[in-house]
Amino acid sequence: MPNLLLTIRYDGTRYHGWQVQKNALSIQAVLQEAIWKLFGEKMDIKGCSRTDAGVHANMYCVSFHAPFYPGEYHTLCAINNALPEDIKAFRCEETDDDFHARYSCVAKEYIYNIYNAKHENPFVSKYSFHYKYPIDEKKLNTAASYFVGTHDFSSFCSAHSDVEDTVRTIYHCSVERSKDMVQIKICGDGFLYNMVRIIAGTLLDVAKGKIQEDDILQIITSANRKNAGKTLPANGLFLNKVFYGEVNLES
Amino acid sequence: MPNLLLTIRYDGTRYHGWQVQKNALSIQAVLQEAIWKLFGEKMDIKGCSRTDAGVHANMYCVSFHAPFYPGEYHTLCAINNALPEDIKAFRCEETDDDFHARYSCVAKEYIYNIYNAKHENPFVSKYSFHYKYPIDEKKLNTAASYFVGTHDFSSFCSAHSDVEDTVRTIYHCSVERSKDMVQIKICGDGFLYNMVRIIAGTLLDVAKGKIQEDDILQIITSANRKNAGKTLPANGLFLNKVFYGEVNLES
Repeated sequence: MPNLLLTIRYDGTRYHGWQVQKNALSIQAVLQEAIWKLFGEKMDIKGCSRTDAGVHANMYCVSFHAPFYPGEYHTLCAINNALPEDIKAFRCEETDDDFHARYSCVAKEYIYNIYNAKHENPFVSKYSFHYKYPIDEKKLNTAASYFVGTHDFSSFCSAHSDVEDTVRTIYHCSVERSKDMVQIKICGDGFLYNMVRIIAGTLLDVAKGKIQEDDILQIITSANRKNAGKTLPANGLFLNKVFYGEVNLES
Repeated sequence: MPNLLLTIRYDGTRYHGWQVQKNALSIQAVLQEAIWKLFGEKMDIKGCSRTDAGVHANMYCVSFHAPFYPGEYHTLCAINNALPEDIKAFRCEETDDDFHARYSCVAKEYIYNIYNAKHENPFVSKYSFHYKYPIDEKKLNTAASYFVGTHDFSSFCSAHSDVEDTVRTIYHCSVERSKDMVQIKICGDGFLYNMVRIIAGTLLDVAKGKIQEDDILQIITSANRKNAGKTLPANGLFLNKVFYGEVNLES
């Protein structure tokens, strides 16, 4: 049975995250219906990550063993026809039999968008957090560099989490502006619950002057959630890239 | 009474165009409610153009005489608070007493977006027409240049129109690609009913090889709607710029 790796994009606005839940619409529930319809059987669909309610994905990977492989074009057309407008697949390939979308993943890249203009913009409001006061993105970029490395990130983990190992490696963390959009980009081998949204909130504290750029290291070493900033809303967050095999930050 | 020029953006998906209509939601109806609420009186709100159902605007201007002017920041905050997420104002200024958003307008720029990829993308589907076969944007750009100048554009006007003067001047018409998005940009002193959407459909006929680049001139001179291409859907169309005073194509 071919093991297929399917790559999708989704606008998470309407969904309660990836994972199937009772009484709430999830990406997984909608996607697996479309896959099951094409293949005529209810196989197990493995997702690369449990994204939260309202989070979007420019790239999200799933893997599953299919009874046959109709080829990329036909698989994508059939699945997309059965999917709503806010979830669409754009790549499909046959992969190694032991490949698993979640366990084979070596790194992920997230983007957090902050729309930095005095007034709201209807075209970005679903995909960014609106912040109307000035942001010095160079300062935030300096602060962001302190996240790079292997650290215990307990300060940047929501209290609801029961993960035991809170050590993660961040390969890249930067802040760039493109007109009114300030974009935080972060790549790491894994992320704790709400970690990117808390990092974004902490970087905003640098913009507000509540903390200095190099306070980031102390906040990390304190291992205390109270020292970090607020958890910014889910709608500004995108899973942007999923890496298998090796991490290529340039691609 | 100060004459105010207010500039807004809107996602036209939910609306039946600019103009107030019975039994259909319009941008004008929603916007004037917000303006009337702030000023406490029902003055006449003049829009720069009658955009069609489903068309979007990166820039749309309205003018009206207000009983007082609370300044840009307060005016925008008050109006935006009363507006839904898909219509937002971003500029407001006091202008000459005889300024009229529609009659003072000297040119408008529209953009038509064609998403040129094999499979759909949830982030652009509301804002572009999906075309999955190859497009040679350089060929389309050459074809586009034939629209520039002063011509009778009856071939590019929907039959429903009862406009008598069908001569318009096009200052600029180009086609550019940015990754999977092919963008038609057109600027002119005025546009006939559905003109940009028919021009976009005709340029797509060049991509399909149904017509050659220089056939555009013959289609124009034929003054026959049947010789032009299909009217592409409204969701790919954006009013992008509105010019008063002088036309600056660079800005």
